[in-house]
Amino acid sequence: MVNYPNMKKSQPIIHENYNEKHYTTHRGMSLEEDISMSNQYYLANDKAVIYKKPTPVQIVKVDYPKREAAKIVEAYYKTPSTTDYNGIYRGKYVDFEAKETRAMTFPFSNISKHQIDHLARIIKHGGIAFVIIAFTKIGEVYLLDASYMVDEYYHATRQSMTYDTIKSLGHLIPQGYQPRLDYLKVLDMFYFKEGNK
Amino acid sequence: MVNYPNMKKSQPIIHENYNEKHYTTHRGMSLEEDISMSNQYYLANDKAVIYKKPTPVQIVKVDYPKREAAKIVEAYYKTPSTTDYNGIYRGKYVDFEAKETRAMTFPFSNISKHQIDHLARIIKHGGIAFVIIAFTKIGEVYLLDASYMVDEYYHATRQSMTYDTIKSLGHLIPQGYQPRLDYLKVLDMFYFKEGNK
Repeated sequence: MVNYPNMKKSQPIIHENYNEKHYTTHRGMSLEEDISMSNQYYLANDKAVIYKKPTPVQIVKVDYPKREAAKIVEAYYKTPSTTDYNGIYRGKYVDFEAKETRAMTFPFSNISKHQIDHLARIIKHGGIAFVIIAFTKIGEVYLLDASYMVDEYYHATRQSMTYDTIKSLGHLIPQGYQPRLDYLKVLDMFYFKEGNK
Repeated sequence: MVNYPNMKKSQPIIHENYNEKHYTTHRGMSLEEDISMSNQYYLANDKAVIYKKPTPVQIVKVDYPKREAAKIVEAYYKTPSTTDYNGIYRGKYVDFEAKETRAMTFPFSNISKHQIDHLARIIKHGGIAFVIIAFTKIGEVYLLDASYMVDEYYHATRQSMTYDTIKSLGHLIPQGYQPRLDYLKVLDMFYFKEGNK
């Protein structure tokens, strides 16, 4: 069972690369770390090539100290125009966003309109698009096809999706030691109908 | 005819997002800008969803001034483990790196082993992988299937690919007003054999 303790959105330590050190102790892994480790596992086992995109940063000022690496001394976080993750699995383009929520609903304020529109575009162009949602209170992580979220985002009267809705429309992601979050297994079962590879 | 004047590798101003302002004047566009504008055109015309990934940055220190956005005050450029561009075109995963060279050869020192290995992986997983190479002296831009570069990188005795080799193995990318570099036309002709869409 997963317990994602860190819900701060503007965490100063950014983990954008799968081979970085983990800064958490004990079981205090974030959803992002679990996905990164799963992606690392998939890559090492030649199952898929999926990466988290680097955090977009607007660089304003760079110093060039002599005989040292260029040092960025003024920069700001930018709003991403796409999702965090994309790559290729079984020959298909895969694109997704991953979000944690402590509540038993997923508020749409948690995802940007840019990201919703991006996911809708990916579906239209024939890619596999989804959202991974971790309910941190109960330790369950779901894979929800992006079409449902796009639809609810634009047409639902409420500004969130409930746990029950996500549970019924989405698929529980199996958790384990390696990979930690086996979301490709869900793709095998529900997107590649002919079964597991 | 293209003229890419800026060959500096550690340019402080980073353009990672398609909707940013251009900092160049007259025709002094960089290859990166030409590709970004082409991608923007493809996106606006619903032809493809292809983005440049943000420049990977290792964030070390962030200040949180009161009532202002978080300010990154110490960060460093990181070596990318993948290529700069990826996305989806006609239902296929597309992945590429873009490089300028002033010489009439493409030196392998211009691309990292990480990137070569990444391109090889994409091919293996069924994606479309290539390198866009701009010969800035003569204003020609080629699309070279990544398989040739992977092969030469690992098996050739010389540490570069000549213009003649790239010209004979690759495809000249048509240049125009919009899109500036119509590299998807090359994909239409040589990767999607059934013709243009």
